[in-house]
Amino acid sequence: MRAILPEDNLLFAEEAFRKFTSEVSPKLCINEIPILDSLNKVSGEVVYSPIDLPPFSRSTVDGYAIKYENTPGKFTIIGKINIGEYKEIEIKENEAVEVDTGAMLPEGANAVIKIEDTKREDNIVFIDKKLRFGQNIAWIGSDIPKDFEILRKGERISPEKIATLASVGINKVKVYSPKVYVITTGDELVEPGEKLDKGKIYESNLYYLLTRLRDYIIVGSSLVRDRKEDIEKEIEKALDLADVLIITGGTSAGEKDYVHQIIREKGKIVVHGIKFKPGKPTILGQIKGKPVFGLPGNIVSTIMVYEQLIKKYLDLMSNSEHEENKKIRAKALITVEADKKRFTYIPIYILRSNKDTYFLPIPFDSYMIGTFSSADGYIALNPGDRIEEDQEAEIIIKNIDERPTLLGEEDLKMKNINVRKITLGSYPACKALEKGVGDILVISSLMCTPDNYDFKFDREILTNGKGPEIGYNDWIGISKIIKNPTVKLKSPSTVEHFLGKAKVYAPEGYIKGDKFYTERLYIVTLNNSRKFLQGIF
Amino acid sequence: MRAILPEDNLLFAEEAFRKFTSEVSPKLCINEIPILDSLNKVSGEVVYSPIDLPPFSRSTVDGYAIKYENTPGKFTIIGKINIGEYKEIEIKENEAVEVDTGAMLPEGANAVIKIEDTKREDNIVFIDKKLRFGQNIAWIGSDIPKDFEILRKGERISPEKIATLASVGINKVKVYSPKVYVITTGDELVEPGEKLDKGKIYESNLYYLLTRLRDYIIVGSSLVRDRKEDIEKEIEKALDLADVLIITGGTSAGEKDYVHQIIREKGKIVVHGIKFKPGKPTILGQIKGKPVFGLPGNIVSTIMVYEQLIKKYLDLMSNSEHEENKKIRAKALITVEADKKRFTYIPIYILRSNKDTYFLPIPFDSYMIGTFSSADGYIALNPGDRIEEDQEAEIIIKNIDERPTLLGEEDLKMKNINVRKITLGSYPACKALEKGVGDILVISSLMCTPDNYDFKFDREILTNGKGPEIGYNDWIGISKIIKNPTVKLKSPSTVEHFLGKAKVYAPEGYIKGDKFYTERLYIVTLNNSRKFLQGIF
Repeated sequence: MRAILPEDNLLFAEEAFRKFTSEVSPKLCINEIPILDSLNKVSGEVVYSPIDLPPFSRSTVDGYAIKYENTPGKFTIIGKINIGEYKEIEIKENEAVEVDTGAMLPEGANAVIKIEDTKREDNIVFIDKKLRFGQNIAWIGSDIPKDFEILRKGERISPEKIATLASVGINKVKVYSPKVYVITTGDELVEPGEKLDKGKIYESNLYYLLTRLRDYIIVGSSLVRDRKEDIEKEIEKALDLADVLIITGGTSAGEKDYVHQIIREKGKIVVHGIKFKPGKPTILGQIKGKPVFGLPGNIVSTIMVYEQLIKKYLDLMSNSEHEENKKIRAKALITVEADKKRFTYIPIYILRSNKDTYFLPIPFDSYMIGTFSSADGYIALNPGDRIEEDQEAEIIIKNIDERPTLLGEEDLKMKNINVRKITLGSYPACKALEKGVGDILVISSLMCTPDNYDFKFDREILTNGKGPEIGYNDWIGISKIIKNPTVKLKSPSTVEHFLGKAKVYAPEGYIKGDKFYTERLYIVTLNNSRKFLQGIF
Repeated sequence: MRAILPEDNLLFAEEAFRKFTSEVSPKLCINEIPILDSLNKVSGEVVYSPIDLPPFSRSTVDGYAIKYENTPGKFTIIGKINIGEYKEIEIKENEAVEVDTGAMLPEGANAVIKIEDTKREDNIVFIDKKLRFGQNIAWIGSDIPKDFEILRKGERISPEKIATLASVGINKVKVYSPKVYVITTGDELVEPGEKLDKGKIYESNLYYLLTRLRDYIIVGSSLVRDRKEDIEKEIEKALDLADVLIITGGTSAGEKDYVHQIIREKGKIVVHGIKFKPGKPTILGQIKGKPVFGLPGNIVSTIMVYEQLIKKYLDLMSNSEHEENKKIRAKALITVEADKKRFTYIPIYILRSNKDTYFLPIPFDSYMIGTFSSADGYIALNPGDRIEEDQEAEIIIKNIDERPTLLGEEDLKMKNINVRKITLGSYPACKALEKGVGDILVISSLMCTPDNYDFKFDREILTNGKGPEIGYNDWIGISKIIKNPTVKLKSPSTVEHFLGKAKVYAPEGYIKGDKFYTERLYIVTLNNSRKFLQGIF
């Protein structure tokens, strides 16, 4: 039985979030954990010191504990207290006890003289200066008196605070954080590092979630195959342990999509499907009143739904402010358009000139983790939105790769040069040339011809096979000479897979075939980037 | 045998660092670790994808795989391919294979139609529209072609990149990071959570270092007692596993300070002792050419030497830029002075008015982790430096506690009000009043008398016992009436420990005793902070 998710009735992410939080209200979670696990988590309690610190009066030097009233003078050494030792010794007038730095003081002592300020003969020590009461002593409680606050509620716990808690003997602390359990499902999944059989793919959702969730309490995770009983059992186990369940895969409408069936049977689906790309078949539901997030299973959806919905919800459960992503304004290098019906996230590269910041949208589909993770950031667009070339828009920044950048056509000659390569074709490279961004621009004569350039060379475009034409993204020069391109490849590197199945076009070096066209490539270098091409041209 | 560290011959931290790095040059370390452990570490290699991603052409929808040339038309369903399955099926003209989202395509298929756009009768499916070649297909390699760069050298590894590595089957990655082993030594140490016997203190160095070192590779840690053979054995084990050893305790000149003996015997001490407070008895040495950092054992020294020396060295070993601490400029609320001979770090609180930022130095000694960790930051002073009241200086910021702040005398009446309490006495409170900072000021008539105030009350100062006078820090009102204060307590909360041993003075409530003086306390509230005192006055 298949339940189709009707595109038009879906909610936008914000509406979905509101609906979900009003039905499954985010419960503030306080959980006790070992202090070694509490780094960067938010304290859920005020902690008062259970002891005085130091817990006893200690010597701060290696020396002799004496009565200050007897100085200057000579003293009979009646014993020694090592660090960590407890001895019931009491000193009387003109008696001394040898003490280590950090050792407790004998009864009756009220000052310590440094060993280097004394002379000793057998068991007699000579002190020729006057000491103060309390000299070289760390008095009991002089750092932290018992019952003093050492950690405040709502404070993000630092290594220093962990050391402070340890110093007063505390090894557990309550933090504002839900316990999270993560399940990934799928018969197609293979653990990274293992052999990939045909038809299988590598698991990556757990890797993302287990590292991304590190500031919360992760109580368990598992990879479960598509058997309903197994998934049911694992969900029950998870909800016994956790405050929140995140489960990936099986949320759509396929026959083996058990996750949505199980959530419906054991609890409730509050939202099924959101107008959000990538991430449409998301489930926001609950079982036994505990929030359950069902993610479609492709890794980029997991990332986007986590960033936009789950993180927000977890922040409400953990009393932390939702950290908004860093945003900047930038101009579109080329026009970009949203999906017509869904809120759309499109990954982008950032390109800067001395005076302007541009963003270049990247051809993208939801399954493309490599594309997404190589991006500098992304743009969020409402359904049907269109940002025209040179129009400014808000960009969500992940992490800008600031290396010198090659922009334009892919060619084997430049395979090994050590720059960032954005080989999305000549169209963005022509635009970059116009606007003065990028460092090495590789432009096909099929797209535009630069007035000035550093190098040029001709390359053959070859063709092989028959049938439907395998073309390239519109941005790539070669696409101009293919009449009915059907598949739009981003790179000649994968064209070999189509040999024998279609009519394939590619530059020389990528396939063997008949000469079809001679393309001229121009190379323009900016910002002293010519050095990267040394030895090539 | 005791070797004294002569104060005058010591090097400053920067000189010591230079000397150490020139003798024990920081070796750039590249180590391979599981990707799950690589979060926030710096990639030590360029990673190229070993496979095409997707590894085979997949359907992006639940539907029927067909030949696009036959659309529109009717198709005979000849099988089904589930996600994760590999089947050798080839479709011919007008045949269809049912496929899951993510399932591989049968041979011969070049398009997939969504299930909801079809009609099915038994094993016949009807498609009434024209499809494109490649429709609803994620082609092999269309995200990441084989051999494409997916991680760059020097990149800080994010959850997204971990997911990308997993997606192409990689489960280990080389990172720029030394392997670090941490040993703490001491007979006096007890694990937090356990019972504290007399003379013992709780271990906290490991807690600090194991959380602070989290961005490097920690290969082991241990707590070892002061037995030379045990420490030797542990050091050997550590250096078999690690690139760097950090060891705390035993670096000074006491009889049981084996660490410096062992480093000297097995390797070399390059620097023994630095003009640095807290942290003087630090050792920078090497064994088998591997850097060994010996720290004095008190936790605040560990923190400061780590922050100022070790972190810098580890950053050189891991190709990361040393992150400088955040700094601000602020005016001294009261005068502050350095140690005469050593570079001195003094913890401070930050207090702000609308127009100025002030810092208040805190009475401090090296063992005071509670004091240090409650501070907003610290000031670094050259030997003998003196910053006068109102003079501006550079402050190193840790984390500013922005809660409304009570400043001044400690009193039991205000024990439970929910504000930050800096009960360092009336002197800083009078200065705060002058400069308009702080929120609730509690001022003793012994120190100054405010022109305007919100509340006032009298309290008795009591005295008990005889002998040397136990007084308070000069900043506390009561210190004005004790003629020869010897011990300088920061808080009346610990005065009870001196009962029977000295002549103790304290406000009523903290001790029993004879009336000695009637002090008047004035309470001034600023910034609408009067509400915190509701129900008290």
